[in-house]
Amino acid sequence: MDEFGEAAFVEAERSLSEGGIPIGSVLVWKGQIIGSGHNRRVQKGSAILHAEMDALENAGRRSASVYRESVLYTTLSPCPMCAGAILLYQIPKVVIGEAQNFKGEATFLRKRGIMVDILEEHRCLEMMTRFIDSFPELWKEDISV
Amino acid sequence: MDEFGEAAFVEAERSLSEGGIPIGSVLVWKGQIIGSGHNRRVQKGSAILHAEMDALENAGRRSASVYRESVLYTTLSPCPMCAGAILLYQIPKVVIGEAQNFKGEATFLRKRGIMVDILEEHRCLEMMTRFIDSFPELWKEDISV
Repeated sequence: MDEFGEAAFVEAERSLSEGGIPIGSVLVWKGQIIGSGHNRRVQKGSAILHAEMDALENAGRRSASVYRESVLYTTLSPCPMCAGAILLYQIPKVVIGEAQNFKGEATFLRKRGIMVDILEEHRCLEMMTRFIDSFPELWKEDISV
Repeated sequence: MDEFGEAAFVEAERSLSEGGIPIGSVLVWKGQIIGSGHNRRVQKGSAILHAEMDALENAGRRSASVYRESVLYTTLSPCPMCAGAILLYQIPKVVIGEAQNFKGEATFLRKRGIMVDILEEHRCLEMMTRFIDSFPELWKEDISV
């Protein structure tokens, strides 16, 4: 992974160390991280702070032109809510750590014109697999199944 | 509008009185409001707290079974992010105040199996039209155009 993929992974590790769901994300504009985040379901009792949403929130209010020159990195394939946020802000490219534990909306994003790279990075995959095995109910809650 | 549509409208009015974007939403489960919210872009400097997201957040962590028996009311047709949240949580029905100022993702939601009622309620329409006329840049920021 490049430095931004690593930064997203560090966010996922941070969430795990907080007792949360280990998914991390960063929003990158012109080669700089402008928002970092991780899943906060446990930490904040949040139903909407998936990692990607947290990164977008932490990036603050930005003009449309910023999002359209940005890349969103996430350790796990985005759910419908996070994919929708990517479409709202027309972020042209998404880099995904892994899409094996959760297929997510990568195909839908591609159909809507977003460039999607799936790395299948073993550290992302292993961290999430271990988490799902250990906390299956929490994981199910996060994807509402 | 029924009492829940009215409650969403009151949320929109509340946002306006706070200097914010006048869009409101409530999440209803078994005939009771379990989450109310309004757009908080201005109030909290938020990029993700659209009205529907705020209502979902204020409903707290809920099991999948609750969302699947719920109805989401919103004064304006949902954007891709909010539509995605509806799909994530498989909320089976959405009641929309108006879809003239913003077409949103009503058609997409229907394609994905969500029941969508569009009321074209004149008070929702007029409030939003007046707001967009008065604050076009803020409105553009909210839908990232």
